[in-house]
Amino acid sequence: MLKTMSSYFVRTLREDPADAEVESHKLLVRAGYIRRAAPGIYTWLPLGLQVLRKLERIIHEEMDRIGAQVVQFPALLPKEPYEKSNRWQEYGPNLFRLHDRKGGDYLLAPTHEEMFTLLVKDFYSSYRDLPLTLYQIQTKYRDEARPRAGLLRGREFIMKDAYSFDIDDDGLDIAYQQERYAYQRFFTRIGLDYVICSATSGAMGGSQSEEFLFPCAIGEDTFVRSQGGFAANVEAVTTVVPEPVDASDTAEAEVRFTPEAPTIEALVNVSNERYPREDRPWQASDMLKMVVVVATQPTGEEEVLALAVPGDREFDERRLEAALAPAEIRMATQEDLQQYPSIVAGYIGPQVLGPNSPDRKVDPETGEISGSPRFLADPRVVDGTAWVAGANKADHHVYHLVKGRDFEVDGVIEAANVRDGDPAPDGSGPLITARGIEVGHIFQLGRKYAEALGLEVLDQNGRSQVVTMGSYGIGVSRVLAALVEEYHDDKGIMWPPHLAPFDVHVLLAGKGAELNDAAEKIVHELDSRGIDVLYDDRPKMSAGVKFKDQELLGMPFALVIGRGVKDGVVELRERHSGQVIDVELDKAADIVEEKIRQACAHWNEAADRAGFTKTAAEIAAEVQATKEVNNG
Amino acid sequence: MLKTMSSYFVRTLREDPADAEVESHKLLVRAGYIRRAAPGIYTWLPLGLQVLRKLERIIHEEMDRIGAQVVQFPALLPKEPYEKSNRWQEYGPNLFRLHDRKGGDYLLAPTHEEMFTLLVKDFYSSYRDLPLTLYQIQTKYRDEARPRAGLLRGREFIMKDAYSFDIDDDGLDIAYQQERYAYQRFFTRIGLDYVICSATSGAMGGSQSEEFLFPCAIGEDTFVRSQGGFAANVEAVTTVVPEPVDASDTAEAEVRFTPEAPTIEALVNVSNERYPREDRPWQASDMLKMVVVVATQPTGEEEVLALAVPGDREFDERRLEAALAPAEIRMATQEDLQQYPSIVAGYIGPQVLGPNSPDRKVDPETGEISGSPRFLADPRVVDGTAWVAGANKADHHVYHLVKGRDFEVDGVIEAANVRDGDPAPDGSGPLITARGIEVGHIFQLGRKYAEALGLEVLDQNGRSQVVTMGSYGIGVSRVLAALVEEYHDDKGIMWPPHLAPFDVHVLLAGKGAELNDAAEKIVHELDSRGIDVLYDDRPKMSAGVKFKDQELLGMPFALVIGRGVKDGVVELRERHSGQVIDVELDKAADIVEEKIRQACAHWNEAADRAGFTKTAAEIAAEVQATKEVNNG
Repeated sequence: MLKTMSSYFVRTLREDPADAEVESHKLLVRAGYIRRAAPGIYTWLPLGLQVLRKLERIIHEEMDRIGAQVVQFPALLPKEPYEKSNRWQEYGPNLFRLHDRKGGDYLLAPTHEEMFTLLVKDFYSSYRDLPLTLYQIQTKYRDEARPRAGLLRGREFIMKDAYSFDIDDDGLDIAYQQERYAYQRFFTRIGLDYVICSATSGAMGGSQSEEFLFPCAIGEDTFVRSQGGFAANVEAVTTVVPEPVDASDTAEAEVRFTPEAPTIEALVNVSNERYPREDRPWQASDMLKMVVVVATQPTGEEEVLALAVPGDREFDERRLEAALAPAEIRMATQEDLQQYPSIVAGYIGPQVLGPNSPDRKVDPETGEISGSPRFLADPRVVDGTAWVAGANKADHHVYHLVKGRDFEVDGVIEAANVRDGDPAPDGSGPLITARGIEVGHIFQLGRKYAEALGLEVLDQNGRSQVVTMGSYGIGVSRVLAALVEEYHDDKGIMWPPHLAPFDVHVLLAGKGAELNDAAEKIVHELDSRGIDVLYDDRPKMSAGVKFKDQELLGMPFALVIGRGVKDGVVELRERHSGQVIDVELDKAADIVEEKIRQACAHWNEAADRAGFTKTAAEIAAEVQATKEVNNG
Repeated sequence: MLKTMSSYFVRTLREDPADAEVESHKLLVRAGYIRRAAPGIYTWLPLGLQVLRKLERIIHEEMDRIGAQVVQFPALLPKEPYEKSNRWQEYGPNLFRLHDRKGGDYLLAPTHEEMFTLLVKDFYSSYRDLPLTLYQIQTKYRDEARPRAGLLRGREFIMKDAYSFDIDDDGLDIAYQQERYAYQRFFTRIGLDYVICSATSGAMGGSQSEEFLFPCAIGEDTFVRSQGGFAANVEAVTTVVPEPVDASDTAEAEVRFTPEAPTIEALVNVSNERYPREDRPWQASDMLKMVVVVATQPTGEEEVLALAVPGDREFDERRLEAALAPAEIRMATQEDLQQYPSIVAGYIGPQVLGPNSPDRKVDPETGEISGSPRFLADPRVVDGTAWVAGANKADHHVYHLVKGRDFEVDGVIEAANVRDGDPAPDGSGPLITARGIEVGHIFQLGRKYAEALGLEVLDQNGRSQVVTMGSYGIGVSRVLAALVEEYHDDKGIMWPPHLAPFDVHVLLAGKGAELNDAAEKIVHELDSRGIDVLYDDRPKMSAGVKFKDQELLGMPFALVIGRGVKDGVVELRERHSGQVIDVELDKAADIVEEKIRQACAHWNEAADRAGFTKTAAEIAAEVQATKEVNNG
């Protein structure tokens, strides 16, 4: 492929787009790869489409390698399947909904679990048909509240979504592991840094779930990792539960006057001033931080919940939401609290909460509770721990309030923030928090969708079994932007060579027949070798502008046809290293060809070397071995 | 590529789908190429996707050949550009409309004229940037009132849409002609029969416009052609206007009693009974058939229109709609007619219509007319022709009513049906009507969109010029279905070899290690040569079922591995010719490879031979020559 800048549909911009905050957004727009059509909705220009197609090709290769089969679903779908899976409701305002001319309810699909499930149900009826993995690379829709960062959080975007179908959990484990290796190969091949994080499954349901995060300061996801190899989304971090404490020497609970202590910090000060401890000063971690929230289920059902965490920690909104998903959470209002007269806002204490609450009533028929809200506490609130908590009376707190002695909880909740230095749940050392962009996600969905939509097959004994499923996504357009986040400098993009829209950028930097002829000859020579060339032939453009464009556009190699031609020499520039060398004009094509070959081979070889290329049998053996370790 | 039927995601169905009326719909569903997701909305299964991708590849090649550049627009778009072009209104209920979470108006794009126009406006500012042709292959949406016939009339479908941008009309003519040749190459390469028909431009606006129709009895479009080479959509056929008639000998107009003559046929009978002619019997063509309709503009403005055609012709709904587009047409009701007391339903005659109507009032300021509706007649109603028409009085008609003497018209309208035997407008002989499926459409849009959206560039003299545009569509998913209409028999599909999902279908027709080994060997041998093989290895399936599936699926060649293997022989079946020959097992791969090579080459060579492969300079010279002929 040979394209000339004078006719290629590309225009570079000197100014960053007004709405752009992150580098990939700025650079992709400025370099003419994409163009905004509406908030979170982009047009692919020729340059961008080239990169996208190369990414898609690699995905197809890796999916094909694990035997996944490609299909393509519509984006416009009827409501019914999504109603059966409850996602029509659960997705709330994130779903684009519409009516057809007959008034039928339709949606623009955010993902296609339901449709894949129904398709397999349509076609398959026996365990012999399984395992099966289907996938598509397709345009998806999500009406984001705050579309931002260009392709990183769009409302129309491109995803690869794959779904596995198995007769049993062992099969699902193998399918999951196959997909996991395919993702590792994919991200290694394209050269995108990634961390595999344990994840909660959110609105999708299911059990095992991991995110592929590209670590990046502008990322919207917070994750933690330990030096020992643990990595997880903060939503998925579980607290290491301390041993119970012997409270036999703890003083009795005592209500004390604590004026002007509306915050934990103020309460610590008041405590140290008025009621100093002998052993050490009072500190935030002695206090019990309480909050009352209302959880609204997708059905609309509301529940008031009282929550507690140690006073030295914050409630983490994402962890709280994940812990109570699919419910939506809001702070309780005075109105919500009216039904609980014992609760005094600002001075809530656990004495009137939980199973021992004097207000608590339990319906003997339904088990339903009333009189006091359900009370969930951080896992660190173990038996024997002593706390300072509200006394359910204005300007008063209770001291020496001991869990298991003075109050009980209805359950635990992972809602406190995770901090640098917290222990990893697997004992692999202290945690460090970081930010990342979710570029892939693999889920064990289990039987949620198959049950909702009736996907069953006959097993070896002729009995009907609900199929178990996995779901595996890659945000293709987002990956493209993430690559720009990883591969750029202050001058522009620096594509990994095998993903660049063109292999080499040839600049005509000067005037005259001799230069022109030399440039024409070299671009056709390169083209004839199957090398993709972008030739900057613009006659009225200064060399300075051409150099700026070349750096902005980011092809891995550039050949500058300039004054050296009279001495038989042209300049070869490597975008990544910044290296500039003179090469003989006659050997330039050979040299460029060899450099491109090496550079592209590098990434495939990295994936091959990394040990992610396994046969199905090897993966099955690995899964089996892991199980035995876990069980043994 | 080697796939086995035992694991490939395909299921053949014995029964036609309940909603299928046409063969392509039945066969594509029964053979597992597509699956219905909702009315007019289909899922592509692996087999269908293979064919689709091959069609797309050929389109990309042909677009690349004429220098068109590929981009990709979103499907979900904001209302504003479509409001400026007026299509937001004009498309009426055919447009899928929706709101985003902030209440903004969006649509699912039916085509992208507006977005392409805005993109070029964004980037280009000089005549030097032109000519330019951009295109995309993309998913489109149209909320059809009656989605039917599978992929032939879908609500979500795949289109190639290209748009050309030129500084002047000559440039547009060249771009149009380039695209026309590219379409001829495309349809020739894929082996789809086509007729290029002159077309009205419908809601798109613009001047020159041609449709590529696949002639086919089940087609929704009627077109006409003459032996002399004329071809046109019926909407685009213009009537050959007869010479004026000398009416000096025609008797005076006379009102006669015509009881029980509510139809043309009855009126002919009554006339012959009561008022016989001397020269010949009265006939339908002597009568004037009248209708009063209401045309509703997209703005909502209504106009009552009286229309007349010769009594031996019908009003053709499509021609009528095309003649009055973009208005929508309905029959006038009694209520609509109340404002015209002279008009007597069932006995309408032109004496009270047209410019000479005694009821007619013309506002001298605005030129607006009232009192009598506008009156448009068929072009055959020329001066001097005499008609029998309603007398605007129950049970009475006027005889010898002469155009130009007794009545006048406000204009002509092409609303009468076209019949076999009508003369072609270009004098190339009598017309024959036929049916077809529109598979491509090329338009000279002209400046409609550029004006509406402000796309101007500076010309050589530094003056701002509105750009002129062309629009060029191929219904890609519809073409796929049309191919099945052309290439099938009662047993199934018969793909053109270069479009088939697989090159060869290998059937294991028998049991035992010897057959198995022979089949395994041959499929791997073929695969290693880059031949795409579908291997029917299903152990529990009878040979009969395998043969039926092979014929249904429609690969061009099949190799049957059966009892002949013990004699070193396998069977080679050609799906198209039905030919069955024995070939030596050892030579089978060679023979199949050569047959595939020849069969695939056939189509490309046909396109090369047909004279559609022209350089831009050759096309420019052709366009110039045509102009000189037309002007000289």
